[in-house]
Amino acid sequence: MNFTHPFLDDDGDKLREECGVFGVIGASEAAAACALGLHALQHRGQEAAGITSFDGTEFYTRRGLGHVAENFSTGEAIGELPGHMAVGHVRYSTTGGTGMRNVQPLYADLASGGFAVAHNGNISNASKLRQELVSKGAIFQSTSDTEVIIHLVATSRYPTMLDKLVDALRLVEGAYALIVTTPRGMAACRDPLGIRPLVMGRLGDATVFASETVALDVVGAEFIRQVEPGEMIEVDFDGSMRSHRPFGDSPARPCIFEHVYFSRPDSIFNERSVYESRKHIGVELAREAPIEADYVVPVPDSGVPAAIGYSQQSGIPFELGIIRSHYVGRTFIQPSDGARHAGVKRKHNANRLLVAGKRIVLIDDSIVRGTTSMKIVEMMRDAGAKEVHFRVASPPTGHGCYYGVDTPERSKLLAGRMDVEAMCAFIKADSLAFVSIDGLYRAVGLPGRTKSCPQYCDACFTGDYPTPLTDLEQRHAAEAQLNLPVDPDPVS
Amino acid sequence: MNFTHPFLDDDGDKLREECGVFGVIGASEAAAACALGLHALQHRGQEAAGITSFDGTEFYTRRGLGHVAENFSTGEAIGELPGHMAVGHVRYSTTGGTGMRNVQPLYADLASGGFAVAHNGNISNASKLRQELVSKGAIFQSTSDTEVIIHLVATSRYPTMLDKLVDALRLVEGAYALIVTTPRGMAACRDPLGIRPLVMGRLGDATVFASETVALDVVGAEFIRQVEPGEMIEVDFDGSMRSHRPFGDSPARPCIFEHVYFSRPDSIFNERSVYESRKHIGVELAREAPIEADYVVPVPDSGVPAAIGYSQQSGIPFELGIIRSHYVGRTFIQPSDGARHAGVKRKHNANRLLVAGKRIVLIDDSIVRGTTSMKIVEMMRDAGAKEVHFRVASPPTGHGCYYGVDTPERSKLLAGRMDVEAMCAFIKADSLAFVSIDGLYRAVGLPGRTKSCPQYCDACFTGDYPTPLTDLEQRHAAEAQLNLPVDPDPVS
Amino acid sequence: MNFTHPFLDDDGDKLREECGVFGVIGASEAAAACALGLHALQHRGQEAAGITSFDGTEFYTRRGLGHVAENFSTGEAIGELPGHMAVGHVRYSTTGGTGMRNVQPLYADLASGGFAVAHNGNISNASKLRQELVSKGAIFQSTSDTEVIIHLVATSRYPTMLDKLVDALRLVEGAYALIVTTPRGMAACRDPLGIRPLVMGRLGDATVFASETVALDVVGAEFIRQVEPGEMIEVDFDGSMRSHRPFGDSPARPCIFEHVYFSRPDSIFNERSVYESRKHIGVELAREAPIEADYVVPVPDSGVPAAIGYSQQSGIPFELGIIRSHYVGRTFIQPSDGARHAGVKRKHNANRLLVAGKRIVLIDDSIVRGTTSMKIVEMMRDAGAKEVHFRVASPPTGHGCYYGVDTPERSKLLAGRMDVEAMCAFIKADSLAFVSIDGLYRAVGLPGRTKSCPQYCDACFTGDYPTPLTDLEQRHAAEAQLNLPVDPDPVS
Amino acid sequence: MNFTHPFLDDDGDKLREECGVFGVIGASEAAAACALGLHALQHRGQEAAGITSFDGTEFYTRRGLGHVAENFSTGEAIGELPGHMAVGHVRYSTTGGTGMRNVQPLYADLASGGFAVAHNGNISNASKLRQELVSKGAIFQSTSDTEVIIHLVATSRYPTMLDKLVDALRLVEGAYALIVTTPRGMAACRDPLGIRPLVMGRLGDATVFASETVALDVVGAEFIRQVEPGEMIEVDFDGSMRSHRPFGDSPARPCIFEHVYFSRPDSIFNERSVYESRKHIGVELAREAPIEADYVVPVPDSGVPAAIGYSQQSGIPFELGIIRSHYVGRTFIQPSDGARHAGVKRKHNANRLLVAGKRIVLIDDSIVRGTTSMKIVEMMRDAGAKEVHFRVASPPTGHGCYYGVDTPERSKLLAGRMDVEAMCAFIKADSLAFVSIDGLYRAVGLPGRTKSCPQYCDACFTGDYPTPLTDLEQRHAAEAQLNLPVDPDPVS
Repeated sequence: MNFTHPFLDDDGDKLREECGVFGVIGASEAAAACALGLHALQHRGQEAAGITSFDGTEFYTRRGLGHVAENFSTGEAIGELPGHMAVGHVRYSTTGGTGMRNVQPLYADLASGGFAVAHNGNISNASKLRQELVSKGAIFQSTSDTEVIIHLVATSRYPTMLDKLVDALRLVEGAYALIVTTPRGMAACRDPLGIRPLVMGRLGDATVFASETVALDVVGAEFIRQVEPGEMIEVDFDGSMRSHRPFGDSPARPCIFEHVYFSRPDSIFNERSVYESRKHIGVELAREAPIEADYVVPVPDSGVPAAIGYSQQSGIPFELGIIRSHYVGRTFIQPSDGARHAGVKRKHNANRLLVAGKRIVLIDDSIVRGTTSMKIVEMMRDAGAKEVHFRVASPPTGHGCYYGVDTPERSKLLAGRMDVEAMCAFIKADSLAFVSIDGLYRAVGLPGRTKSCPQYCDACFTGDYPTPLTDLEQRHAAEAQLNLPVDPDPVS
Repeated sequence: MNFTHPFLDDDGDKLREECGVFGVIGASEAAAACALGLHALQHRGQEAAGITSFDGTEFYTRRGLGHVAENFSTGEAIGELPGHMAVGHVRYSTTGGTGMRNVQPLYADLASGGFAVAHNGNISNASKLRQELVSKGAIFQSTSDTEVIIHLVATSRYPTMLDKLVDALRLVEGAYALIVTTPRGMAACRDPLGIRPLVMGRLGDATVFASETVALDVVGAEFIRQVEPGEMIEVDFDGSMRSHRPFGDSPARPCIFEHVYFSRPDSIFNERSVYESRKHIGVELAREAPIEADYVVPVPDSGVPAAIGYSQQSGIPFELGIIRSHYVGRTFIQPSDGARHAGVKRKHNANRLLVAGKRIVLIDDSIVRGTTSMKIVEMMRDAGAKEVHFRVASPPTGHGCYYGVDTPERSKLLAGRMDVEAMCAFIKADSLAFVSIDGLYRAVGLPGRTKSCPQYCDACFTGDYPTPLTDLEQRHAAEAQLNLPVDPDPVS
Repeated sequence: MNFTHPFLDDDGDKLREECGVFGVIGASEAAAACALGLHALQHRGQEAAGITSFDGTEFYTRRGLGHVAENFSTGEAIGELPGHMAVGHVRYSTTGGTGMRNVQPLYADLASGGFAVAHNGNISNASKLRQELVSKGAIFQSTSDTEVIIHLVATSRYPTMLDKLVDALRLVEGAYALIVTTPRGMAACRDPLGIRPLVMGRLGDATVFASETVALDVVGAEFIRQVEPGEMIEVDFDGSMRSHRPFGDSPARPCIFEHVYFSRPDSIFNERSVYESRKHIGVELAREAPIEADYVVPVPDSGVPAAIGYSQQSGIPFELGIIRSHYVGRTFIQPSDGARHAGVKRKHNANRLLVAGKRIVLIDDSIVRGTTSMKIVEMMRDAGAKEVHFRVASPPTGHGCYYGVDTPERSKLLAGRMDVEAMCAFIKADSLAFVSIDGLYRAVGLPGRTKSCPQYCDACFTGDYPTPLTDLEQRHAAEAQLNLPVDPDPVS
Repeated sequence: MNFTHPFLDDDGDKLREECGVFGVIGASEAAAACALGLHALQHRGQEAAGITSFDGTEFYTRRGLGHVAENFSTGEAIGELPGHMAVGHVRYSTTGGTGMRNVQPLYADLASGGFAVAHNGNISNASKLRQELVSKGAIFQSTSDTEVIIHLVATSRYPTMLDKLVDALRLVEGAYALIVTTPRGMAACRDPLGIRPLVMGRLGDATVFASETVALDVVGAEFIRQVEPGEMIEVDFDGSMRSHRPFGDSPARPCIFEHVYFSRPDSIFNERSVYESRKHIGVELAREAPIEADYVVPVPDSGVPAAIGYSQQSGIPFELGIIRSHYVGRTFIQPSDGARHAGVKRKHNANRLLVAGKRIVLIDDSIVRGTTSMKIVEMMRDAGAKEVHFRVASPPTGHGCYYGVDTPERSKLLAGRMDVEAMCAFIKADSLAFVSIDGLYRAVGLPGRTKSCPQYCDACFTGDYPTPLTDLEQRHAAEAQLNLPVDPDPVS
């Protein structure tokens, strides 16, 4: 059974982080640690999982559709993955479509030996690079943007593997957190802006890399530090480590949505507790958009930390006015009579006796299409709520992401189509407010957003993309020639 | 993928309700409503599910191991179950062992026509009755105690199906909430003490029965009332309904653990909000066992409502000091080095930056074996907590349940082996307190426990079993003859 | 992959024997021998297979849809079936419908202990007996006629298991070859007329029973003798054996179609080589229906022995004018253009260069519906055959079988609808001839058919049924009341 | 269930043809025809099957382990393969190992568009070519030798697809019968010596290519002619066809073992009926190695045509002394007691009553390891045969094949280790004779073998390999350096 994202509505009304990566070198049962680590990153990608291990001689790969636990929890599965080094991946299908051949890690036999890579992010000029490679005779086995990196490495004229990899990455534009394994060891690196996260830990003598610190916790590793934006770290089998900065220095722009929703609340992102950030967004919201009410009710589970912050700041009691089922994922056949909103109720049910006759402040992390928000407001009213005020723990999401997050096209984003007043009417709330962009920056510990050089990538809120978007521009140009309607966002 | 109970530790350190039942008569797509209703009862039994429908001529049955969504979410599955009446069941395996032939509803072709039954509870003289039936030539197809009821009905000399069923149930001892379907309609009944729950609702012209009101909510049905203890309700295809009280009157003893843990917080049990009961247990706990601390931290998710109550009563802030993974269920292969307590961390991870240096009150719903409580206390300390105080939202669980709940034998119940002080030492908390039995009764809206005639079944706390336990006594007698060590609990 | 009968056309244009049984007692790995034996009987039933073993304490059962090799060839499968006694079954679904619960051996826990039975044959008053049992409270778990026997045994008042079994069988009418296992040993018996086959062999110290001698050959057992019609043989675990004749003496009527088609040619049936019988049918055919031709061509594989006989008697060379594929069973999607008769060609293809311009005598074992015969004649003509003469190694099959053979209703039997001349026109042959009923009896070593008391059951050719057919008569009576058209055959 | 080759002994005591190919262009449901055609070629490869179709815009591929019928018989499967052009493949795993990624057709997105290829044969310099390609940055996705061809095409500098393909094939050495599809149409070609077979047919307006004519018969296509050795035929979507001879002329050397065993007897190979060839080998054998005996008995099924020829020439009656089971393929767990030779008996059982006391001439097509021949001789003796004379319808097989046939290494070939007299002693026959190499050539219609320029490839009998064997030579050279024992055969 493939459960979808537990925070997800059935109609996919959330932004979706597309990947998590985990690597370990120097551990006696590397694949077992890798499986546990990926399991802790399951919320970052639930469609498929894969692990590649290396036993000093050969590489072993096992991939599967579905959850980590479905594919990597048995001794048999781990037994197929011997060795002291392993790299793993969980994924959604953003670029590349579904299907087993796109499940990472991707592996290739190069002239220099085996090469396995796990990639979180999105290469925004992958189509262009792929076209060039194919025209020179390269044969792609997947539709994944990650395979472009492998072919660039395979055809690089540089002598060492590290040089080949740097040579390849210089041609690549966009966001990437990569873990690479070769017969000589492991390398981990983040793109120059550090858009996607990657951290490093220590597990006995072994070195561990992971998308989030929660994965270090679960495998019992100690958190050392994050891999810095633009940094490439090499680790050998003897444990020796070298850090490189091949792309020079530039100010970092990590993804602020990791604080809002993607990372687990018990992770530490960009040197700050994610739980703390979320609670403080609630505090900021209570300051920016106060309201008189009886209860603060989170939309579970992602709205809970901000709701606690809102409650503490406002003094309005925190109560579970919506109960969340733990058994979600499938769309059921709807009986034709009755069962209004059975879909949303299957996941979220009103706590009627609590809510009836009360003024409710609902707290959710974000609004994407708005359809689920509308249903939840209606559910509160059906349960007898006197007033329903909606507070959102992020600014309006009006722009698509091209850095490895699955966003609907702009015309389907509620905030891409209307202003706050219209949105409030659409979801039928008594009032609606979003935290301001500066409030969000304050909540993550900064004085506010530095317009000239923002400290985070916040393109989904501001449309301010920190890299070129070559493939998108080419597609727009082609569509313009064909007179196709062009999604207005974002390159203009 | 079969997820186990989401509230469950990997080592099963919870009591487990064993079943949920759902029935609908008079709906145009009865099986689809039944599937949705069972899905809402999934927390009551996750090992297997089954639905039997009737289309006016024939009965159709589909059963499957695993979750409702895995077996009954597709149009194909529902298409195999035509008709206006359907009854369904989710189960754990208490009595009867695992295996498809024990998955309910059980069905038989009797001389009077088809007969399907879904049963929540446990018949405490099933072995004795079975022996008698087999000696007369009955051939059993399952090892389920429920099949005894069918054979008693099949061999009853009474003329009508209702009389046969009453005749059968008079021979039966223990706990049962039953939904029965025959070519003439549906009957629902609870044992004379009403130990297990059963409620009735209305969905358009259709009548619905379910273990909990949450299932009515999810299918969009209106909650009418509970089926009373000892009541049998017949519903015909024309919607006419008759209530019977074949067993006379006796004071009811519904299971108080439904308030503590089994029912969903958004259900109404015994005419009271379960969420409210749980929050009030927290309030009672804060009164009975106050402590100075920085944060009230629930063991998620079952400890949350009591923690909110404790926080509101004590004024100590409610915080998420433990983050729960949504992806649980499988035991993973443990890497041999590192990964201490990876098992418990896979499910519960400390929110380190919050907890470090703080005094924590942990709130959990119950302690069964104590092993998980011990690990969670240790996890808090590893995360730097200065003090860890444990508060339990139920009295000590010192006795087994023989009414359809999966309990370890008494010698494995922590409260069956030691007093509170020893338990505190075992789990290594700075202090430990349980709500008192009277506090629990107060929390569910009563003045306290009436010792002469308790208003609930609370045998797991008190050892006061409200029915004879024939099979258990016979087993003890047989073991005594063999000089086998006898579990001291409970018949002596 | 479930291959259907290898001799079968896709449209089922053959009579189908419905079962094979195999039992062994006293062998150290009884289930392994049983699996091999069933594999050798696979041609008698390919829909499902099952084995029940007994290890001195408990019975173990494993059943599966499909072939023996798919379900019982692994060590894991055999490991689930420990013990020195095992009984197995392969089946088609004649009476009882498909589905796992009808797969034999059937097993029941009786008051006297476990009871497993494997049955080849058909009980012609099963419906009537079942009705009576259900009216007394019996609950059936299958729709198989065999279960009637178990309930009759369960409710028999006789003291010993053997007496109970005899008591049960006295109420039963029709054809049966049974192997029964209980905690006390094994019993094997044939109905009083011995319609279905059963033989006994010795494998070291173990005793073996099987439907055909080929199963003895394959497991390495020595053929001792057949179980006599009306005989019941008991074998204990110490190897002691007792023969009973509980039904008195009556002249035997074994099924003559075992010689024609059902048994493997390397089996010995009714003390005669099946291969020899088939070759002699060919000899008789050549005498009764000679023709001038260039080649004798068998319809492979079942027509081969008769074709050799025809060739040797007539002097016309035996040639493979039709080549049979070894990969049959599935119906393929037909491309809409081209591919005329691809269905039949998938199985049988003309050996064009041989056949072109030649006069061909085709030899097949029988004609049921005639559709395949028609296609094969056409295939010979398409390949350029100058003349096609059809010779059939059995008399016209004009009547249904009610003794465990799957026959179409009479109106679909070609010989039930038309005479030989019309049949010849239907299949478009240049000439058509069947062996005479007396020729068939001569081929099996008799002087001819004794009309007053035939030596075999030949009801499918003659309509002369050797037992009452109670269920059929009741059905006809019921249909007559409803004025439904009644299939004329056979009770009138 | 994966049945292995029906002619195969359980211990693989046959040479195995490794592939069959089928292609169709211009048919409205190309994939359905392709599935049927592959089904008719199933005997050429049973491990896996695949089909690639093209609908004018996109290519669709479906592959599966097991038989064609298991993977391609349903409407659903065919529905996934739309379009008017399809190419398919059945395979054993000779070069390349097992696993889905080696299942053909192989497909690649080249700069010039999609490219799918199905290949029967073996490239004897594949390792060397692969090494060169990888060193230039090529990334292989399979271990199949066929992928070398695709990479050579992808990196060819020639402008048109046809030129690229010819350019690639010029670098390739060994045996190949190829069907290639591109967005522009289909191409079929055979290596310059025409070692592996390929024929062309017409199905309405569509053009069909197949390994054997039997596949044309089954889909209802008319046989046009064979693709000539060294010929490349292009077919466009409008049906226009062009024949090329890019490799110049050289005398052909088709594989003579197609006549002996690989092809189906109803196929036409190298302009001659395979059935006729096999019968004539029997005639030659009877002339070269006559014997006095009672019966000629074929080892079924592959020995049947030669046995008919031997019988007709010698006048000794042809009889089925060995009966073959239709249910083969799995190795069963052997019971420890009894069941001597149960393995071989599971497939072949003696027709005891026929054989007892008789002098038997056994006819088989070939002897590879000799183990099965030994067991069959022993089975005849166990059944009471007075004399057992073995006649083999091919010369002694003393040399490995490197052209796409799975042969054991030379030291395991019986004829590689001993002379005829020793072989006779090994299999314990009363006499043993093989047809002479000239007798074999006479049987296929030639005056005898032309030593200077043999008309067929007969390397497995003579060691006369018609091409260089580069990879083998390199491996031998490498092993010689390591002082490993080198299999003496064949390059020296």
